[in-house]
Amino acid sequence: MRSVDLIQKKRDGGELTASELVFLIDGYSRGDIPDYQLSAWAMAVYFRGMTPKETAALTLAMANSGDQVDLGPISGIKVDKHSTGGVGDKTTLILAPLVASVGIPVAKMSGRGLGHTGGTIDKLESIEGFRTELSREKFMNQVNEIGLSVIGQSGNLAPADKKLYALRDVTATVESIPLIASSVMSKKIAAGADAIVLDVKTGSGAFMKTLEASEQLALAMVNIGTEVGRNTAAVISDMDQPLGFAIGNALEVQESIETLKGNGPEDLTELCLTLGAHMVVLGGKAESVEEAKQLLKVQISSGAALAKFKAFISAQGGDASIVDNPALLPKAPIVLEVQAKTAGFVNAIEAEQLGIAAMLLGAGRATKDSIIDYAVGVVLRKKVGDAVEAGDTLALLHVREADESVKEVSERVLNAFDIQAEKAEPRALLLSVITAEGIKRYS
Amino acid sequence: MRSVDLIQKKRDGGELTASELVFLIDGYSRGDIPDYQLSAWAMAVYFRGMTPKETAALTLAMANSGDQVDLGPISGIKVDKHSTGGVGDKTTLILAPLVASVGIPVAKMSGRGLGHTGGTIDKLESIEGFRTELSREKFMNQVNEIGLSVIGQSGNLAPADKKLYALRDVTATVESIPLIASSVMSKKIAAGADAIVLDVKTGSGAFMKTLEASEQLALAMVNIGTEVGRNTAAVISDMDQPLGFAIGNALEVQESIETLKGNGPEDLTELCLTLGAHMVVLGGKAESVEEAKQLLKVQISSGAALAKFKAFISAQGGDASIVDNPALLPKAPIVLEVQAKTAGFVNAIEAEQLGIAAMLLGAGRATKDSIIDYAVGVVLRKKVGDAVEAGDTLALLHVREADESVKEVSERVLNAFDIQAEKAEPRALLLSVITAEGIKRYS
Repeated sequence: MRSVDLIQKKRDGGELTASELVFLIDGYSRGDIPDYQLSAWAMAVYFRGMTPKETAALTLAMANSGDQVDLGPISGIKVDKHSTGGVGDKTTLILAPLVASVGIPVAKMSGRGLGHTGGTIDKLESIEGFRTELSREKFMNQVNEIGLSVIGQSGNLAPADKKLYALRDVTATVESIPLIASSVMSKKIAAGADAIVLDVKTGSGAFMKTLEASEQLALAMVNIGTEVGRNTAAVISDMDQPLGFAIGNALEVQESIETLKGNGPEDLTELCLTLGAHMVVLGGKAESVEEAKQLLKVQISSGAALAKFKAFISAQGGDASIVDNPALLPKAPIVLEVQAKTAGFVNAIEAEQLGIAAMLLGAGRATKDSIIDYAVGVVLRKKVGDAVEAGDTLALLHVREADESVKEVSERVLNAFDIQAEKAEPRALLLSVITAEGIKRYS
Repeated sequence: MRSVDLIQKKRDGGELTASELVFLIDGYSRGDIPDYQLSAWAMAVYFRGMTPKETAALTLAMANSGDQVDLGPISGIKVDKHSTGGVGDKTTLILAPLVASVGIPVAKMSGRGLGHTGGTIDKLESIEGFRTELSREKFMNQVNEIGLSVIGQSGNLAPADKKLYALRDVTATVESIPLIASSVMSKKIAAGADAIVLDVKTGSGAFMKTLEASEQLALAMVNIGTEVGRNTAAVISDMDQPLGFAIGNALEVQESIETLKGNGPEDLTELCLTLGAHMVVLGGKAESVEEAKQLLKVQISSGAALAKFKAFISAQGGDASIVDNPALLPKAPIVLEVQAKTAGFVNAIEAEQLGIAAMLLGAGRATKDSIIDYAVGVVLRKKVGDAVEAGDTLALLHVREADESVKEVSERVLNAFDIQAEKAEPRALLLSVITAEGIKRYS
């Protein structure tokens, strides 16, 4: 087998076999096949696409390129969740205790964030004492005991994907649906889950700008799951504004606690109930999404979900008293208002700009070695559809120092708000659900 | 400027500007832009193509990447010729003295061959004493004195093209018309000619398999010439069999001499007269191709072309007596017949197989360091359309030793002949002419 022939086969619209893809990916991992061949192949894939079978074979080849987590010692159907990213996305903090409270084992490995705000691991570490580096054994035991553990990603999951992604990033071959889908799924499969629920964002603030493209990506990922025997479902939601109100690590923990108490923002609550319901169905604890949703609502109103969150914090060494007393979380010394200059209605809020604002305040990492300030961030006071008078507070900045740079951040937050004279038609948050049965739109 | 953005622009169907292409090619030449970016760009070009302006800009960027020969010291319009390759192609040996004899200065730098048979330089070196390594000054002086010199390619012509071609070869990005066209033309432009005539082959034995593809390639090359101010014309000819009868270095020199004497094979003579006529027109020595052809026929019948060949050989130290006495050329000790097994008509002759046969006998280089045997080769006795009886001689093998390997070569030559019961419709040799005015088919 020669890699140039495989590139040509794909270039000419052919379908590579599983063994041809293993040859390419293994050769690339080992360094036997050079970058310049993989980048030419990736560009050919960009133009020619891949069949579902081919995409699944590529995914498995990448999943098999490194460690594969064996969650066998944990009893029950392990359901994982993945978000395609989003500003102010704290769904994992809410979903993990929520679905664990109905008996779905949650054994999650999560990443640190590079960019806007921290990742789930950073957010959890804003709770004093919380440890995210547990041994595999302790991790599994904890899931068996209390049904839930979230640790930092360790080991070497899908290194071929990591290498290929870095190459795609510098060769304009990122935006290929089968390549994106296989990249996401290879890591999830290597992480050992039996079933996967995908939280796919769409809209101007998301990686996929149109609903159709997002649906195609979701379908590609669900197809991979089906092909490799991991039940997979995807929920597509709109991203014309950040999810909830809080952007920043401790601020998001606080908002998650409110949501688990039943007092969370409407959009965040709705999305968590929907994603959670799909997890519950795939985990075999309910027959239908509707039934699962009711079950989860009861877990919130009864306090069971919140109790699970407390047990989770304690088990990993954190101070669970923050749940009843969120004032114990890291707190920024200064809170500044961002005020509206004009009256009207909020038409959209550029999530990405708010993410950058939070990062500039210290909530995220500009580089790998940046140190995160858990306390700082942005809290929205107005969301899409809200009426605004000049002088109204649009957002609060939680800052460490009120220096010059904060002025720029404040300006950036102000500009992220698109305020129009007319109130726009309200947009639905939930747009489509994709399962092995196909695409189903909400409206 | 970032190369990833330029790859993306091309990927999305955009037209790169001249300065963007210079950025890519210069950066690549210097090693600042890595192979994996150029290969992704080349694959994007494969799918998206390039505009004529873009192709010309790429060509110039590659032509400017190394030495550029200044033929200024030679007076007159310097017309170069390029063949897209072909087995048994000795046109340069004939054309150089032929057009020089009407006053077109021929200052040609030519390559050695890797593959089937030697290049023009190897063929010339089969003449005892012939020197192909002249200083630039001696080269120019000779052209000014006798109107003609052919030397080995020296210096560093279009090194960016060389580097890019090697990359394309291993990334399945060779078969792109703008990339092929710019590769050929960058070297011709760097070699300093004022005008260029292209000999483009088509058919199963050629790089371009269909007439349409060959015309598109020719048109792309003519467009480049027009864009950069070098008059260019292309002649497309059929390659369903080798040109002439001889394949092998000294054997081809001998056939060239016969052709200059007016006794050459019909196809070879016809193609040389046509290519030569275009060279004469571009060189300003005739108004029309028809007029130029008549002029060249006179040069042959009068002996002027042959005399120019003799002067050329003498000027470069060779033994010009071979022209009157070709028996003085290197001669293989053994000549074997390849006989037909069946009766019928020759339908086609696979030129590539005969090329490989000649190489296996020692006429070409399997590797860079192979030493060429000037004497050996294959001489056809039958060509397409000829009637054949079983036992008739199809070809003669001129060999050094009649060992086991010769049997295989003989088998290969036999198999290269496609003999059918019915005589096929004769195919035209000359198919199209492409000039700045467009494509003109012969029939």
